[in-house]
Amino acid sequence: MDPTLEAISAEEYDRLTSLYGPLTDAVRDLIDATIRTDADENTLREARAAIAAVTDALRAGQLRTRPEVRIGADGRPVVWSNAVIGLRNPIAPPLTVNHDAPGRCWSEFSLGAAYEGPPGLVHGGVCALVLDHMLGEAASEGLTKPLFTGTITVRYLRGTPLGELRAEAEIDRAEAVKTFVRGHLSDASGITAEAEGVFVRPSWAREAS
Amino acid sequence: MDPTLEAISAEEYDRLTSLYGPLTDAVRDLIDATIRTDADENTLREARAAIAAVTDALRAGQLRTRPEVRIGADGRPVVWSNAVIGLRNPIAPPLTVNHDAPGRCWSEFSLGAAYEGPPGLVHGGVCALVLDHMLGEAASEGLTKPLFTGTITVRYLRGTPLGELRAEAEIDRAEAVKTFVRGHLSDASGITAEAEGVFVRPSWAREAS
Repeated sequence: MDPTLEAISAEEYDRLTSLYGPLTDAVRDLIDATIRTDADENTLREARAAIAAVTDALRAGQLRTRPEVRIGADGRPVVWSNAVIGLRNPIAPPLTVNHDAPGRCWSEFSLGAAYEGPPGLVHGGVCALVLDHMLGEAASEGLTKPLFTGTITVRYLRGTPLGELRAEAEIDRAEAVKTFVRGHLSDASGITAEAEGVFVRPSWAREAS
Repeated sequence: MDPTLEAISAEEYDRLTSLYGPLTDAVRDLIDATIRTDADENTLREARAAIAAVTDALRAGQLRTRPEVRIGADGRPVVWSNAVIGLRNPIAPPLTVNHDAPGRCWSEFSLGAAYEGPPGLVHGGVCALVLDHMLGEAASEGLTKPLFTGTITVRYLRGTPLGELRAEAEIDRAEAVKTFVRGHLSDASGITAEAEGVFVRPSWAREAS
């Protein structure tokens, strides 16, 4: 299953973002309402029917069956469906990742009820998901270099509360085909979880670089 | 923010599951359609308006603002919003976790477009999310023991394809307040990622046990 590779202009990127972004945001709101509602049985039944009708309408158009990779004007892949940063993926918070130096990045974002594990706290696995992504962004310098995650270790210092959070990641060192990256997740009171990852350049990309 | 603790009967559990389950499933379908649709601009605009109307209707009822923990008839917590197993959380695949022996569990589940990282593959962080949850289930014997994740390490052997997957986890050994757990994720061709975790009994739970 080869992805479709296609370069798009900044204008096209903006057009697609304004086309799909509001729909995806609306589904994010719906996810939150679905988890938290105390509506009566009748409202729930009507909601379900209305949602099914929207799904049918969206599926009446052709559905994307092959993964799609487009390359933006800045050389970064445009990732619609990515589970952490995908602009078209309602599951993604989404994170906006800022690269402030080569091999270093940060993101500030908010995690609501959909990301809960223990009551009131972010699921430990969601912390790992976010940290894995951020470490990968740092290692690959914004997903512009082909790299696979070899290993990631997450140390939980305390529970991460739902709400406003920040994640940072930075390349520690590189040795041959391996890149070592560190990062952490924090709330207003400080670091809640730390991570270390080893990223590996795939063999097919070694000759090319 | 203390969670609400409430015990519910098996009948009440079934009633709530049949009330909220179909709505949550409908939102899961909508998430997939949102990512994959190629519908025209007009359909997207109408979809967005219809979704916003449903969200408003769900929010017109009182919204749950405090985390809720209910204890089912089998002593397991009923977790509505958990990001991996929550029956009311459209972000959760959800996993149904089977405990076949004390400290050992497995789950078979499917991950679609919403869980994508590299094209056609599960996001590495989603693998970590699932493994973190499964290790925690094994360590806590089905979330019946209070435990916090200390550390988790995930080793990626190869990319995990989207589709049908299986996860397993098992307690390796216990030492004082620490429980060591191992697990893995596999597709039809074998293991794709392995994990080790150290879980710690919180100090408030040590005297009670």
